[in-house]
Amino acid sequence: MFDKEYDVIVVGAGHAGCEAAAAAANMGSKVLLVTMNLQNIAQMSCNPAMGGIAKGQIVREIDALGGYSGIISDKSAIQFKMLNKSKGPAMWSPRTQNDRMVFAEEWRLALEDTPNVDFYQEMVSGLLVENNKAVGVTTSLGIKIKSKSVVLTNGTFLNGLIHIGDKNFGGGRAGERAATGITEQLLSLGFESGRMKTGTPPRVDGRSLDYSKMIIQPGDAIPEKFSYSPTKALEHQRDCHMTHTSELVHDLLREGFDRSPMFNGRIKSLGPRYCPSIEDKINRFADKNSHQLFVEPEGWRTVEVYVNGFSTSLPEDVQFKALRSVVGFENVKFFRPGYAIEYDYFPPTQLKHTLETKLVSNLYFAGQINGTTGYEEAASQGLMAGINAHQKINEKEDFILKRDEAYIGVLIDDLITKGTEEPYRMFTSRAEYRTLLRQDNADLRLTPMGYKIGLAREDRLKRMEDKLEKSEKFVQFFKDTSVLPDQINPIFESVNSAVVDQSFKMFKAFSRPNVTMDHMMTIASVSNFVKENDLNREVLEQAEVQVKYSGYIAKEKNNADKLHRLENVKIPANFDYTKLKSLSTEARQKLTKIQPVTISQASRISGVSPSDISVLLVFLGR
Amino acid sequence: MFDKEYDVIVVGAGHAGCEAAAAAANMGSKVLLVTMNLQNIAQMSCNPAMGGIAKGQIVREIDALGGYSGIISDKSAIQFKMLNKSKGPAMWSPRTQNDRMVFAEEWRLALEDTPNVDFYQEMVSGLLVENNKAVGVTTSLGIKIKSKSVVLTNGTFLNGLIHIGDKNFGGGRAGERAATGITEQLLSLGFESGRMKTGTPPRVDGRSLDYSKMIIQPGDAIPEKFSYSPTKALEHQRDCHMTHTSELVHDLLREGFDRSPMFNGRIKSLGPRYCPSIEDKINRFADKNSHQLFVEPEGWRTVEVYVNGFSTSLPEDVQFKALRSVVGFENVKFFRPGYAIEYDYFPPTQLKHTLETKLVSNLYFAGQINGTTGYEEAASQGLMAGINAHQKINEKEDFILKRDEAYIGVLIDDLITKGTEEPYRMFTSRAEYRTLLRQDNADLRLTPMGYKIGLAREDRLKRMEDKLEKSEKFVQFFKDTSVLPDQINPIFESVNSAVVDQSFKMFKAFSRPNVTMDHMMTIASVSNFVKENDLNREVLEQAEVQVKYSGYIAKEKNNADKLHRLENVKIPANFDYTKLKSLSTEARQKLTKIQPVTISQASRISGVSPSDISVLLVFLGR
Repeated sequence: MFDKEYDVIVVGAGHAGCEAAAAAANMGSKVLLVTMNLQNIAQMSCNPAMGGIAKGQIVREIDALGGYSGIISDKSAIQFKMLNKSKGPAMWSPRTQNDRMVFAEEWRLALEDTPNVDFYQEMVSGLLVENNKAVGVTTSLGIKIKSKSVVLTNGTFLNGLIHIGDKNFGGGRAGERAATGITEQLLSLGFESGRMKTGTPPRVDGRSLDYSKMIIQPGDAIPEKFSYSPTKALEHQRDCHMTHTSELVHDLLREGFDRSPMFNGRIKSLGPRYCPSIEDKINRFADKNSHQLFVEPEGWRTVEVYVNGFSTSLPEDVQFKALRSVVGFENVKFFRPGYAIEYDYFPPTQLKHTLETKLVSNLYFAGQINGTTGYEEAASQGLMAGINAHQKINEKEDFILKRDEAYIGVLIDDLITKGTEEPYRMFTSRAEYRTLLRQDNADLRLTPMGYKIGLAREDRLKRMEDKLEKSEKFVQFFKDTSVLPDQINPIFESVNSAVVDQSFKMFKAFSRPNVTMDHMMTIASVSNFVKENDLNREVLEQAEVQVKYSGYIAKEKNNADKLHRLENVKIPANFDYTKLKSLSTEARQKLTKIQPVTISQASRISGVSPSDISVLLVFLGR
Repeated sequence: MFDKEYDVIVVGAGHAGCEAAAAAANMGSKVLLVTMNLQNIAQMSCNPAMGGIAKGQIVREIDALGGYSGIISDKSAIQFKMLNKSKGPAMWSPRTQNDRMVFAEEWRLALEDTPNVDFYQEMVSGLLVENNKAVGVTTSLGIKIKSKSVVLTNGTFLNGLIHIGDKNFGGGRAGERAATGITEQLLSLGFESGRMKTGTPPRVDGRSLDYSKMIIQPGDAIPEKFSYSPTKALEHQRDCHMTHTSELVHDLLREGFDRSPMFNGRIKSLGPRYCPSIEDKINRFADKNSHQLFVEPEGWRTVEVYVNGFSTSLPEDVQFKALRSVVGFENVKFFRPGYAIEYDYFPPTQLKHTLETKLVSNLYFAGQINGTTGYEEAASQGLMAGINAHQKINEKEDFILKRDEAYIGVLIDDLITKGTEEPYRMFTSRAEYRTLLRQDNADLRLTPMGYKIGLAREDRLKRMEDKLEKSEKFVQFFKDTSVLPDQINPIFESVNSAVVDQSFKMFKAFSRPNVTMDHMMTIASVSNFVKENDLNREVLEQAEVQVKYSGYIAKEKNNADKLHRLENVKIPANFDYTKLKSLSTEARQKLTKIQPVTISQASRISGVSPSDISVLLVFLGR
C-alpha cells in the first residue's frame, strides 16, 4: 500500500506534528503525516489561544523561520493582545484568542496545500528500526511504512489515562482513545520513559453565564498580528471576560479533596507547575482567598466557553458546585467537566540538539513526548525536528539555534542539557539574553537562517531586508540629526526631563526615559523623514527599540559573544570523562550521561561547577 | 450536577439525535443532547451528500415539518442536482453534495442557537427506568441525569466492531471508540437485539487522481435547494467525477476474498442490500464486468475525496492494489482504507408508530438502532421521536404520519409493522402512493401539520399558503381559459400532437404529453398571468404538476381514501388473537407480536393474508 519510501514520517498531527510535516515538506522532503483521526488535525486540546509571555515570541520565531503557526493563528484569531506593553520591549508578548474550529480547519487546509505532505489515518503502534536507525513505522493494522526518518509527536496519547475524581479510563484526549505500542518498543530499545500529567478545565455553555457581573477583557484597540507575512490584522474582535474564585468556592473545592486523584495518590506524575489546577493553587497558596478566572469564547459563533484558570481533576459534582459559586457562573451549565491526563514522556536528555535521539538515529521527538507543555513549545520543537530530519537525510548541516538567537534555542538546549521532571514551559526568565530575543526582531534574527536552509521563502527575506534597511536608516537619521531647544524642550518638559539650551542630537533626546516615537513624530523633520521614506508601523517600532534600548542590547550582545567563545570549544564525541580524575564525581556522571558537545553546554548542566569547567578547559588546551 | 429534570434526553448527536433534540426543543421541551464527543456532532460518517431518490423527498418532508436537515444541507452544499428530472414528478429527487466540515459546523451552531438545547459530552452507559418508564440516563462517570423521556440514537456505536480484512477492533466509527452498556441493559429489560453491518469506502487524496480520464459530473445548471425556507441556492458549485471498475479491478479484488470478513464468516450480520460493498457487487453480479464509481469531493477546499461505490472491508492492501487499477486512480494515495462495521440494533417491531418502545414507556429509538441505513432515514426518525417525546410528556396527541401523507410515514410503518433483518433503506417503490408523496408538495402535505403541533413556524405556513393559493389560482386559470388554434397549434406541432381547429381549453392543451410550462409560457395570456400575479418558479412547478398529473393524483387520492377506511377500523389494545380460531397460525403469532393498531396496519404484516383480514373485520363488526 505504501510502495515508496518516504523521507520523513511524522506521527501525530497536533501542533508539533503539523509544523514538522510542513517544514520537512517545504524544504523538499516527501512527508507522510499519520494520525489516529484525520478529522482531528491541529486540535487546541486545551485553551483556544496562541502566544502569551515568551510563547508569543516563539510563535513569531516559528513564523520568521517559515513555519505555519503564526499564519494559522492570525487566520483564526478572534482577539489580539500585545501583553506587557507597559514594560520594556523584551517583555512584549503577542497573544491571540482563536476560533478552535477555524484553527483546526486552516491547519488542515494549509497542510493539504503543501504538495509534499501525504496523509494517512491510523494508529502507529511501532517503529521499524534497523541497525539503530529508524527506517519507518508499523500501524495497528500491521502495515509497514518505510521512511528515511521518523518524527514522533504523540502528545498526551501514549498510554494516556484520564482522571476525573476517583474515576479513570484510557484515552488520549476527552472522547478519543489512547495510543499503545510505541512506549513499550522504545523501552525495549533502551530508552527511559516517565509519566507526566496535565489537565484542562470544564467547558461550559456561554448562554448560561452572566457576563454583566464580570470584567470585560477586550482585545487591543489597534490589533497587530503574529506573522511577518502579509496576513490581515483583525477588523472585529470578540471580548473575553474575567471573574474570580472566592473563599466559598475554595471551601467547596476542598470538600472534594479526599476524592481528588491529585491528593489521594492516584496521580503520581507531576503536572505543569506554572499552569496548576485550581485545587493545586488552593493548596499551594493557602493564603490567597481569590484566583482570577478568564472566560474565553471558543470561537466566533459557538457558545462554548473555556474557563481558563479552573483546570481540575476533582469529581465532576465538586467542579460543578464550586463553579456555580463563582460570580457570573451562578447558573452555569457544563459542556464537559475538567479532567487530568497522565501520559508517557521520554526524558529529553536522551536527545541531541537536533531533537534526534541519541540511541536511534534518524528518530526525532517533538512536543509533549519530550516533557514540555504548551502549543508553542510543541510547535517549535516540531519545526526543528522537521528541519533537522530533512537536513540529516540530505547530508546537510544540523540546524541548531543558539541561546542568544532564539527562545527555541533556549528551549531545546534546556531540555537536552538539563532534562525536565515536570512539564517544561517557556518563560522570558529562562533566556539569559532576552533583550536580544524580542518579538519585534524574530524576523531579523531568524528569517535569513530560515531562507538559507530553504524553508523561509524569498518574499519573507525581502520583507525582512526592507524592514532592516529602513529601520537602520531611520536610526542613522536620529544619530545624524540635531534638534533645536525650541523643538525638543516642550517634549522634555512634558515628561519631566531636563531642558537643554543648545542644539541637541536627536538620538540622545529620543534615548531619554519616557520620550516616545509619538513625541519624536511631532518634530517636523522626523515626520517628514517617515513620510518621504514610507516607513510603516513595524519600521517605526523597530527603530524605537534600537534607539531606546541600544545600551542594553549592546551589553547583551557583548555577553553573548563571550558565551560564543565557550561555544566554540567543542568537546569530542564520546569523550571519556572517567580519565579526568579532578572532576567531581557528580560532574563526571552527569557529563557522561548528557555528553555535551561544547564547554558552554557543559557549563549549563546542573551539578557541573565552574571548577569542573576549568578542569575541562585546561584538558582541552585552553 | 444535573439538578433539574430534563424533558427529553437525546443520546447521540448524529442525524437522528440532532433532529430529535431540535424538534423537541423547538416545541418547548427542555432537552439535553449527550454525545461522546462534542467536536464530532453531525458527522457525515459515510458519503458527503444528502438526499437522492426517495431520500431527497424525506429531507424536504423533514424541512416542511420544521426540522433542520434541509436548511443545513443547503448551507453546506457544494453541488445540487434534481435526480430523475426526465421522469414523472413523483420520481424527482433532490440531492446535494456537501462540505463535510461545514455540515457538521452548521448543525452544531444551529443547535447552539436553539435555546432549549443543552449539551453534555460523555458516554451514556445506561438508562434510568422506573416502573417500565424511562426517567433518565446514567453515564460512564456514574452521573445520573433525570428526564421525562429518553431518545436513543446510537448509530453504529453500540458494541461497534470495525473490520478490515482479517483484522477487527472495537470502535463506533474510524478513530472513535464504541459505546457499551446500553445493549446489555436493554436485553435485561426484555428487548431483543440483533447485529447489523454497514461499510464505507476508502477516502483518498484528490491530488493523486487524474480527473482528465474521468467523466465530469457537474451540478444542475440552475441549482435548486432543499428547504422551503429562504435559504440561498448555490451560486458556484464543485464538480464530481465518474469512473468505473474493470475485469482487472475485479480480479484484483477477488484475490483478497479469502481474507474478506464478509466471505470467511467473521461478519455474520447483514449489510445494506442496496448499498453493497464492491466485493458484494462482484460476487452477486458476476456477469457485470464494470461498476460505476462516483468520485465525490469532501468539501469546498479540502483535497479529501470519497470513492462512492467502492465500499469495502477487504484487506487494505487489496483495496489499494485494486483501486490503483481504476481509470484515473493509477497513482491514488489513501487517506484511510474502507472498512465494515458491525453494531447492535433492536428489531423495530418492538416500537409503536410514535417510535416509543412497547416495553419501556417514554423511551424512543431513532436511526440505525432501528435497523435503518441512511442519513435521511435517521434524521426523519429522530424528528418524529423528538416530536412524539414532546407530545407524550405534555399529554398531547401522538404525531403519526400516514402512508399516503409522507415517506416518513411509510418508513416508520414499514419498520414497526414488518421489522427488518437487513439495513432498511427508503425507495420510491416502498410507497404505494408515491404520486402523492412528491418533493414539490412536501410543504403542502406537512407544513400545516408541523405548524399545528408547534414545530413549523408561522412564516413557513404563510409561505406554503401563498404557494398553494397562487398555484390553485393558476390551475383555475388554465381551467377557465381557452386558447385559439393559431396560438396552440404551433406548440402541438412541435411535440407531434394532433392540431385542433377550434378554440381549446388551456387545461386540456397543457395536459397533453410533452407540452410543458415553457411551451405554455409562450402564450401571451399565460405569461401575462404569471407576471401580474408575481408567480415564482415553485408556483409554476406546482401548477404544472397539478395540471399534467391531475389524473394520476386523483386516482391515488381515491385509493388512499379507501385505505383510510381500513385505518379507521381500530383494533383494541392487547387484543387477544388466540380466541380467533379461524386465523391462520402464522397470522395469530405475527398479530400477537406486532399488535397492530388498525386493520390497515394488520394487512401489511407479512404472513397476514386477506382472508385473515376478513376474519378480523367480521369479528370487529364490519
